[in-house]
Amino acid sequence: MLEDLKQEVYDANMQLPKLDLVTFTWGNVSGIDREKGLFVIKPSGVDYEDLKPSDMVVVNLKGEVVEGDMNPSSDTPTHTVLYNAFPNIGGIVHTHSPWAVSFAEAGIDVPALGTTHADTFYGDVPVSDALTKTEIEEAYEENTGKVIVRTFKERQIDPEAVPAVLVRQHGPFSWGATPAKAVYNAKVLEVVAEMDYHALQLTRDDIKVPQYLLDKHYYRKHGKNAYYGQNNPKSQDHAK
Amino acid sequence: MLEDLKQEVYDANMQLPKLDLVTFTWGNVSGIDREKGLFVIKPSGVDYEDLKPSDMVVVNLKGEVVEGDMNPSSDTPTHTVLYNAFPNIGGIVHTHSPWAVSFAEAGIDVPALGTTHADTFYGDVPVSDALTKTEIEEAYEENTGKVIVRTFKERQIDPEAVPAVLVRQHGPFSWGATPAKAVYNAKVLEVVAEMDYHALQLTRDDIKVPQYLLDKHYYRKHGKNAYYGQNNPKSQDHAK
Amino acid sequence: MLEDLKQEVYDANMQLPKLDLVTFTWGNVSGIDREKGLFVIKPSGVDYEDLKPSDMVVVNLKGEVVEGDMNPSSDTPTHTVLYNAFPNIGGIVHTHSPWAVSFAEAGIDVPALGTTHADTFYGDVPVSDALTKTEIEEAYEENTGKVIVRTFKERQIDPEAVPAVLVRQHGPFSWGATPAKAVYNAKVLEVVAEMDYHALQLTRDDIKVPQYLLDKHYYRKHGKNAYYGQNNPKSQDHAK
Amino acid sequence: MLEDLKQEVYDANMQLPKLDLVTFTWGNVSGIDREKGLFVIKPSGVDYEDLKPSDMVVVNLKGEVVEGDMNPSSDTPTHTVLYNAFPNIGGIVHTHSPWAVSFAEAGIDVPALGTTHADTFYGDVPVSDALTKTEIEEAYEENTGKVIVRTFKERQIDPEAVPAVLVRQHGPFSWGATPAKAVYNAKVLEVVAEMDYHALQLTRDDIKVPQYLLDKHYYRKHGKNAYYGQNNPKSQDHAK
Repeated sequence: MLEDLKQEVYDANMQLPKLDLVTFTWGNVSGIDREKGLFVIKPSGVDYEDLKPSDMVVVNLKGEVVEGDMNPSSDTPTHTVLYNAFPNIGGIVHTHSPWAVSFAEAGIDVPALGTTHADTFYGDVPVSDALTKTEIEEAYEENTGKVIVRTFKERQIDPEAVPAVLVRQHGPFSWGATPAKAVYNAKVLEVVAEMDYHALQLTRDDIKVPQYLLDKHYYRKHGKNAYYGQNNPKSQDHAK
Repeated sequence: MLEDLKQEVYDANMQLPKLDLVTFTWGNVSGIDREKGLFVIKPSGVDYEDLKPSDMVVVNLKGEVVEGDMNPSSDTPTHTVLYNAFPNIGGIVHTHSPWAVSFAEAGIDVPALGTTHADTFYGDVPVSDALTKTEIEEAYEENTGKVIVRTFKERQIDPEAVPAVLVRQHGPFSWGATPAKAVYNAKVLEVVAEMDYHALQLTRDDIKVPQYLLDKHYYRKHGKNAYYGQNNPKSQDHAK
Repeated sequence: MLEDLKQEVYDANMQLPKLDLVTFTWGNVSGIDREKGLFVIKPSGVDYEDLKPSDMVVVNLKGEVVEGDMNPSSDTPTHTVLYNAFPNIGGIVHTHSPWAVSFAEAGIDVPALGTTHADTFYGDVPVSDALTKTEIEEAYEENTGKVIVRTFKERQIDPEAVPAVLVRQHGPFSWGATPAKAVYNAKVLEVVAEMDYHALQLTRDDIKVPQYLLDKHYYRKHGKNAYYGQNNPKSQDHAK
Repeated sequence: MLEDLKQEVYDANMQLPKLDLVTFTWGNVSGIDREKGLFVIKPSGVDYEDLKPSDMVVVNLKGEVVEGDMNPSSDTPTHTVLYNAFPNIGGIVHTHSPWAVSFAEAGIDVPALGTTHADTFYGDVPVSDALTKTEIEEAYEENTGKVIVRTFKERQIDPEAVPAVLVRQHGPFSWGATPAKAVYNAKVLEVVAEMDYHALQLTRDDIKVPQYLLDKHYYRKHGKNAYYGQNNPKSQDHAK
């Protein structure tokens, strides 16, 4: 069942240790088949070196296990909420990567301070509210998903333009059109969090980039006028 | 004598360089056979690449060498005190891992600022008092163990719920049900110390997590309602 | 066409991941044949592990592609401006190396604080002005080159004596007599940015090195009295 | 000539990249044969991967090359001064390791803040004065040695008890009974500089360790009552 997607999700999971995004088993990737309404996710607490594509667990959009011998990631209810709320995303990543976690613990957005950020995130990566006592006790992982969705709604951020969030006191979630893209976004977030931390220690000036720089960099890589790389609509034009 | 335990302790010692927790020979792991009242510990000052399981030294709970051609770790008296004081622990680790040492030098607890911490440590990881001149001169390593025990008693911390300490001006000790678990806890401490350092530089706000978040995360992985991973009591329930 | 230069530029590009200067595809190296007036540059957005010497794209000094199946780096117009403005340089590197980017985001020169810096850079490595809205919208990459050139002119810095710059809100460009030398300078910049960051956090004193130390270190390695290494004019003299 | 010493010095040089103490060729190790009054040193500006034991250059205590096809390290006059001034040392190391350089640039001693430091350095590692204009212009490398010797004399520090220094605006030199011990001391300095940096950012309290802790740790590993490891005078006693 969904063998190709299992392989894809397995491959994306295996990128996490390779990109220095996880310690021990602290990370998970899922990917969705939108037509079937099913997603595939890493099993809970399994070492990366022991992981096999066939270990991936198949879950429906109610968060119920449909296939798989192992328990899915304990964060499965969070993934379920996000797939339901963000209909265009194809993969989700959660890690405890240390720079992003530091901002999540401090309760501070990862601000857009440069083009490294703007190439991937069209504005600050927001930190969510903390979950309340009731939210934690009643349905912790599900409410983690809900607080993410609420953050994007309240701050009117488009989750496709800013494909990551910091859950306060917890850590980053990211997403993308595919599981591999979601992993890419998780790494970019970690790298820009590191750069931003040091920039913020160097100066107290307001160093946020202006909107027109965000526009330039984001649309260089996204949308119908994108020209970065080999396959974007205007790549050939830019190359002249 | 205790060949299986020697292998287990050897394996746990060899995890220290693999997890970037030691420079040169600055770390040691021990493990105890509670029925026999004997523990096994790394020899003093031996390079990790030269270490063999048969080099492990067997010591009784008075701190006397029972078997072994080499001298045990110079920290053996500290391990002895901890095994006597904390009757449920099965393994102990000491390292000079740099982030944890920085907090020990600064004399600051590693505070519980996020879920990465709360998954393993049910509250702040305490820093001990400094040893007095007399304590250092009379029985330095034994008194290092005693100041750890005193710290947990005075601050009423359960050493099974917070399985690590920072000895002030020195560095971390951690423990666990097995030598491998103690190494795991040593790594978690190092990772959260790194995250906490950066969070504390980013903000002056009070960012300690609330008690109910500690409760949620700690009991997700520990005790009769634990549901993280494949083998905890409620893993299947959570997976639905 | 230009097969030797393509190999040389390919080799220099492959040094970037080896020297920990790039994440993903975020870096590019070019090299010029001054007699032919043509330069060779990495294609846009190609993974380093997939890169081949024959993928290198040949471009003329108007920035037009002369040979190559792939699109050149999107930063090609910046390289074009620099080759035209700085007639003695033979190679150019652009990366998003994290320490240098942190200074670029903070808008702070990498100051000359020690001999590590002075051996390569004869003074502070300047940060450019930010590009204006018009400069970004009209010809972003070309204007990036122009703001670099303007920075060196206005501050009367010799681009051969200080072979690197931080483009504000973006990141470092470096150059040198050859593509390999330009990569060397990119790595030196990253290393001194890291050292300088920590020195600047340790003290508020004015710790810039005096001019005579800059002179000593720079001319130890450059010019007709250089004596460092095996092949400089005065190497044998210094060795006595 | 001195083939064993050449091999020993070669081996010690090759430890520098393995211990992450050098970038490019920025480091050198020498070792001395006190009976013959000759020392052996790395050639100047040679890549570590190209280095061979036979490349090592033999120098006498006037700093004159006695044997060798290549030029010796440009820092040879500094080594010469130190071998003459410190008659009991057998090896010298110079690196630009980044944490130690940061303290050298800031002009701040690496303070004794913990036992990691005290196990190797019996007190703060001092930063030297800056060289004057005249000292730099007349005999830079020789005067670098002289300012080190002056620092130890003026501050009444025993170079065997504190086997390292930071040359202000430059970087660390360390030494020891053998070239390998000098490399060991260079790595300890780098590690404690990293720990100290973070401790100093965490607190403004006076966190220097007391003299009795320095005494305890230093004499645990040095002198006639040393008991650390397998071969010290009291190792067996401590092991009981």
